[in-house]
Amino acid sequence: MRRYAELAVRVGANVQPGQLVEVLGRVEHAPVVRAVTAAAYRAGARYVDVYYSDQHLRRALIEHAADDVLSWTPPWLLERAKQIGDERAAVVALTGDAEPELLADLPGERVGKARMKELAEENNRQINEQLNNWTVIGVPNAGWAKQMFGEPDADRLWDLVEYCVRLDEDDPVEAWRDHVARIGRRARTLNEMKVDTLHYTGPGTELTIGLLPESRWQGCESETAEGLPYVANMPTEEVFTTPDRRRTEGVVRSTRPLALYGQIVRGLEVRFEGGRIVDVKADEGEDVVRGQLQTDEHAPFLGEVALVDGDSRIGKTGLTFFDTLFDENATCHVAYGSAYAEAVDGGVIDGVNVSTVHTDFMIGGPEIAVDAVTADGTLVPLLRDDVWQLD
Amino acid sequence: MRRYAELAVRVGANVQPGQLVEVLGRVEHAPVVRAVTAAAYRAGARYVDVYYSDQHLRRALIEHAADDVLSWTPPWLLERAKQIGDERAAVVALTGDAEPELLADLPGERVGKARMKELAEENNRQINEQLNNWTVIGVPNAGWAKQMFGEPDADRLWDLVEYCVRLDEDDPVEAWRDHVARIGRRARTLNEMKVDTLHYTGPGTELTIGLLPESRWQGCESETAEGLPYVANMPTEEVFTTPDRRRTEGVVRSTRPLALYGQIVRGLEVRFEGGRIVDVKADEGEDVVRGQLQTDEHAPFLGEVALVDGDSRIGKTGLTFFDTLFDENATCHVAYGSAYAEAVDGGVIDGVNVSTVHTDFMIGGPEIAVDAVTADGTLVPLLRDDVWQLD
Repeated sequence: MRRYAELAVRVGANVQPGQLVEVLGRVEHAPVVRAVTAAAYRAGARYVDVYYSDQHLRRALIEHAADDVLSWTPPWLLERAKQIGDERAAVVALTGDAEPELLADLPGERVGKARMKELAEENNRQINEQLNNWTVIGVPNAGWAKQMFGEPDADRLWDLVEYCVRLDEDDPVEAWRDHVARIGRRARTLNEMKVDTLHYTGPGTELTIGLLPESRWQGCESETAEGLPYVANMPTEEVFTTPDRRRTEGVVRSTRPLALYGQIVRGLEVRFEGGRIVDVKADEGEDVVRGQLQTDEHAPFLGEVALVDGDSRIGKTGLTFFDTLFDENATCHVAYGSAYAEAVDGGVIDGVNVSTVHTDFMIGGPEIAVDAVTADGTLVPLLRDDVWQLD
Repeated sequence: MRRYAELAVRVGANVQPGQLVEVLGRVEHAPVVRAVTAAAYRAGARYVDVYYSDQHLRRALIEHAADDVLSWTPPWLLERAKQIGDERAAVVALTGDAEPELLADLPGERVGKARMKELAEENNRQINEQLNNWTVIGVPNAGWAKQMFGEPDADRLWDLVEYCVRLDEDDPVEAWRDHVARIGRRARTLNEMKVDTLHYTGPGTELTIGLLPESRWQGCESETAEGLPYVANMPTEEVFTTPDRRRTEGVVRSTRPLALYGQIVRGLEVRFEGGRIVDVKADEGEDVVRGQLQTDEHAPFLGEVALVDGDSRIGKTGLTFFDTLFDENATCHVAYGSAYAEAVDGGVIDGVNVSTVHTDFMIGGPEIAVDAVTADGTLVPLLRDDVWQLD
């Protein structure tokens, strides 16, 4: 756990001496929160501030609170978020639901709407202004393991996570350096190709996503506006960019279950017209997606498109993690809602989506062919049978 | 647990429909925090906001942070505290250390100084302006039970706490009504007597505490400035008042161990001159008291004096709880540091102590005789052999 915390602090958030460090975790994450806190102080943090959240409190809110309170942000939490931006704090956020289906029996639309809206807006602003060096890591726990394996084998999940984040390597820092370089090359190739559109073809999927001329592919490593590098997700296996929110057309069938706000969405199918999601179907959890898409005007537009091949360590496990940090790094995915301005030359320009939601869902796999069409009209196969075609 | 949470919300904090409710707990308290949250919503709370703290983070702070950061308050936490006052929120605070000696191996003075000073000032202000209806309850847990019994028998501790807070009664609300009335009569008697000084005599103790003419004895029930009644501690067995901070003289030997900030203070002996603590000795934990007393100018003066007889349910258990909420209700105690303005006609007048610390320690028991001298010079025995002399 100490090595994991060190990796998150040194390679992930890249905490700097004298920095304020903000840790966000669930109450069930306390042991890892404590390890990250100690690691951050060892890295020279001036002060480590922790905010513990609790899904059971969200459950009580959804069960009892008035409609207008569901998406309310307590002013002090907003103030806190602003100060994290103003102070250029390092942020370490932890995921890993102890009860991924805790809200399964609650009305989906209320579940989808119960998010602090002003806080999401502030967080988006900070991400787009690239104020903070941050990372997200997963925290194995018995409940999460039970969701995955049918039994609460947290040790097995720890082993898996160690593999996914390269802690099984003799020198994980070096292994990350190699990995970042390899995915970085992939991003460079795509940028040199000047991709104009992406095409996805497979069972239930016939999708075209148009990019902006300014869309810029990125690998694992991000940079703050002040030039401090960090790795925002651990694991991360993707190259991603920001699409033109107006140019997605067609139908896509999700290839993996999606754990979303305490419910599991299965068999998700989405249809786009003129960039907007105009139809949502799912075997389970349809309402939570619908609730989310009603949150604001631009929630039903894409904000991110990411490519992951079968070489991904997460994909190689053959497991569904029921946690987006892991599942999105197993295969290709897109996200409806907010875009990342860092992946666009010029930032939040016309066609870059702005929303208070950001939900990734998985659309890749061996049965999905992915092609690019470049600005000059050349068709370039990117993925066939989960194999990256350009290496 | 549900009945306990209901008691805390309805009788303790007396949560009102539409109120903002603030819950403060440790990560280890999550099950009770959740029960209190649900109970608060059932009582009509508009929104329930929870702040989870974690002693391990305080440990990391004390181990690693610079001196000037030890007592720093993150601005957003101060903002949060202010808004709790502005909004007239109800507050439910939870105690019950999972590891009461977690900080035992750290330098005592740093432990004593590591408290958010601005936050304490703001909290004092709110208590003295009587802005909020609030309560403090204990949360039994395995670690606390281990400290008490030598084994982590949380069930045994739950049974004890149920007894202490009258949940063993058929109608606990009615039992509290009777209890509040009985202790209220005791306060009325003392107020009618116009007590000028209190005298404590016993092994190692020869102490005089002078009151103010404006000192007013209070029983279990408090009131906000707007007239909303609440019970600030559950359990509570005391009558208390605010002394004249200038008029304490002599020596007092604590009669029970004191759990203080993750250390245990044993065999505490304190000498007062002109109201000020001029000498501190202890068999263990002396430094944490010293560190605390250096926090501000008026930390070494008394802010509270409270009388508890042997009829107290907590005292009757014969156990040390290593938690002040319980131990202070087992027997007579005093607190150095901030006073309660509600126990003075006129509020924070001359002689009422203002400080950022408030630490109760226990000075009563069967071997301690307590007498009052009234304003007209009459000596009135109050406690002999732990029996209240005025009922």
